[in-house]
Amino acid sequence: MSEEHVSMWKHLGLNLTAHDALLKVLGDAYTDIYLAQKQRPDGMAYFDFVMSEVHGLRIKELLDEKEQGRKIIGSYCVFVPEEITLAANATLVGLCSGADFAMEEVEKYLPRNTCALIKSALGFKLGKVCPYLESADMVVGENTCDGKKKAYESLGPLLDNLYVMDLPQVKSDQGRTLLRSEYERFKVAVQDLTSVTITHESLKKAIQTVNAKRMALHRLARLRKADPVPISGLDALLANQVSFYDNPARFTESLNKICDELEKRIAANQGVSPKKNPRILMAGCPMAVPNWKLPWIVETSGAVIVGEESCVGERGIRNLTDDTGTTVDELMDAITDRYFKVDCAIFTPNSDRLNHIEEMAKDYQADGVIHYGLQFCQPYTMEAIPVENALDTKGIPSLRIETDYGMEDAGQLKTRIEAFIEMLK
Amino acid sequence: MSEEHVSMWKHLGLNLTAHDALLKVLGDAYTDIYLAQKQRPDGMAYFDFVMSEVHGLRIKELLDEKEQGRKIIGSYCVFVPEEITLAANATLVGLCSGADFAMEEVEKYLPRNTCALIKSALGFKLGKVCPYLESADMVVGENTCDGKKKAYESLGPLLDNLYVMDLPQVKSDQGRTLLRSEYERFKVAVQDLTSVTITHESLKKAIQTVNAKRMALHRLARLRKADPVPISGLDALLANQVSFYDNPARFTESLNKICDELEKRIAANQGVSPKKNPRILMAGCPMAVPNWKLPWIVETSGAVIVGEESCVGERGIRNLTDDTGTTVDELMDAITDRYFKVDCAIFTPNSDRLNHIEEMAKDYQADGVIHYGLQFCQPYTMEAIPVENALDTKGIPSLRIETDYGMEDAGQLKTRIEAFIEMLK
Ligand code: SF4
Ligand code: SF4
Ligand code: SF4
Ligand code: SF4
Repeated sequence: MSEEHVSMWKHLGLNLTAHDALLKVLGDAYTDIYLAQKQRPDGMAYFDFVMSEVHGLRIKELLDEKEQGRKIIGSYCVFVPEEITLAANATLVGLCSGADFAMEEVEKYLPRNTCALIKSALGFKLGKVCPYLESADMVVGENTCDGKKKAYESLGPLLDNLYVMDLPQVKSDQGRTLLRSEYERFKVAVQDLTSVTITHESLKKAIQTVNAKRMALHRLARLRKADPVPISGLDALLANQVSFYDNPARFTESLNKICDELEKRIAANQGVSPKKNPRILMAGCPMAVPNWKLPWIVETSGAVIVGEESCVGERGIRNLTDDTGTTVDELMDAITDRYFKVDCAIFTPNSDRLNHIEEMAKDYQADGVIHYGLQFCQPYTMEAIPVENALDTKGIPSLRIETDYGMEDAGQLKTRIEAFIEMLK
Repeated sequence: MSEEHVSMWKHLGLNLTAHDALLKVLGDAYTDIYLAQKQRPDGMAYFDFVMSEVHGLRIKELLDEKEQGRKIIGSYCVFVPEEITLAANATLVGLCSGADFAMEEVEKYLPRNTCALIKSALGFKLGKVCPYLESADMVVGENTCDGKKKAYESLGPLLDNLYVMDLPQVKSDQGRTLLRSEYERFKVAVQDLTSVTITHESLKKAIQTVNAKRMALHRLARLRKADPVPISGLDALLANQVSFYDNPARFTESLNKICDELEKRIAANQGVSPKKNPRILMAGCPMAVPNWKLPWIVETSGAVIVGEESCVGERGIRNLTDDTGTTVDELMDAITDRYFKVDCAIFTPNSDRLNHIEEMAKDYQADGVIHYGLQFCQPYTMEAIPVENALDTKGIPSLRIETDYGMEDAGQLKTRIEAFIEMLK
């Protein structure tokens, strides 16, 4: 660990001992789960580097940007439009929340029966271990699930720069109007933060930057349709995870390079796992770094993951934003249209998501679907049942998993998942 | 059980065996908890009768009304305005959901980690034991908590007459606009159901009927400020519970008679428990019939409950609806204003509720507050923590309870509650 990094973390107010512990957990998990994989694309070296410097060089970059007057905005949900932040010369970073931290402290603020993602978000703050959170000039919360909605009430006083975005619960005209006006309010807040006025030009350019990132991820997704699959689910998940905090242009370029490599692999009939290996579609809650538990179990149990119906995955990146509007307002409308299609389980009814899972299963030629619900996540664990029923009627096998970030149930999960995969053969 | 009742239940499609079992549970609980109380007001005989005929005479009345063309509307939440239903010549009944039923069946539709109220609502349907639900011409769901919001997606196909009302999550101008337009949409739906057009006159009269019921409940609440308390918390809770399905005018009259009696008791310095007995304010989730577990434990542990900060209690009835508007639209505005003040924990932020709990603790001279959260109810179990903190800073002792409808934890709860009460002495 370089001296420079340590003094940077100190300067950000991190708890160095706790932070060291987190980095160790992260590093060990990465070694055991990622580096242990065989036949990885060479291009993944970029992601290995990014991950090794996730709290180092990338933070230094962000702090350098800050020195030059750029603002950093942190977010917990894919409903926060990166287009708007980029257009106002601010950088958006996802606040990952994929590991348990400071749980004893957390339970003074949140009931035990809260999903691991939310607990982790609070734990990273209380434990002072997240340099992204501590670098952020503004942190955006959103009224999605009850858990987050109420947790922001506890997080607010700890942060002093929390901005809460309201969201609709129904895809009605009124729902759309609410989203549109909340994005307008957000635009104003971001402009106030950065003192930069968003123009048609800057917004159009931001849309194109974010679309390019999405298109690279779409390209990656398409390449996973091949059999044998040229990249593991773990590595593809990592690309999606890194997309939340890497520099968008550099990320896009690096990912496209990997895709070039994958195309060659496909041409050469090369894969990360044997042809005809059971192919799994994951569906459900987002998996934030370093929450690699479930894909790791799946991919070390004789199957390969070919897609993620998740906000860290296809739900998050599915649609592009139309960039043809000729005024800021038209572009803001297009942004609203784009995000209004996100089929998060917080919406009711949410039949789009059921259809989308079926479609994905077909498109990616999945042999089965594993629905991943974080324990105590009511939207997704409840929707898992209709998802299962819908897949049943189409004859697509599925397995409902409910778990958290702990490793206590890993053995039991492995047994269930192995049996499921066995059944698919 | 009269022959006539049995054939009525059969006609409604109830599962008679299961229904008998439910009635037995209900009757036994009522005997053990209610009839075992000492020094009850004579007027409670009315409620004893109502409860003994809750699935009998009251259902017969409703069915007789139906024969004469009146419609029955069932609801799960105090956000459904009784004023609108009454004005269109429909009767609103609360669908109580206070007991576990058909739990094995329920878990095919809902995850285990769902609050008992929601599970019960589905269990009553799946078990075919609720004559109110089976009599209803329309059942109204609402997008309040994630649990209910998503559960209605499962309940819908079982019911074929489910109407879902959208609700805001924030008390903003847009939130109010949504509520106003959802009430308008509901008005139209109710009119369509009943073929009765709501007029200024009928709506004004309906407002007055519902206000009269609320005022009787306010009167009851005020009388509980006396020391010694003239009525038990259990009996006062029952009055609130019965207000959800009794005929409003008869209920108001009967309750006012009890209040007359309580006034005499107060004048004579008579109470249900000794003067200076610890006084408890209950706050939190609604308690539906026959969910009497917690108040029963409290009042058999040496304390008396003096108020309920709950939707089956003061949160549900606190505000009156202004009846002075001169058009239907003005009255609809007044209805919206009234309901928009309901401080359910689904709203964010919800500081009104914290203030209201403090105020109630002072007004009713409570020695302590017990916060009641149903297990897996995220809005209330999460808000319990800021409630506790707010009460702490005012020096008001409080106890956070999280439980369900089962009796397994009764012993443990009693121990904790006794210790809390001991501390208040
Ligand atoms: S799952 Fe829903 S709440 Fe979570 S990040 Fe996605 S859109 Fe946001
Ligand atoms: S996993 Fe579920 S409960 Fe947790 S933050 Fe996401 S939507 Fe909310
Ligand atoms: S607690 Fe909230 S959701 Fe439940 S009945 Fe009251 S207002 Fe409705
Ligand atoms: S108790 Fe809580 S979770 Fe249950 S229905 Fe009411 S608000 Fe929803």
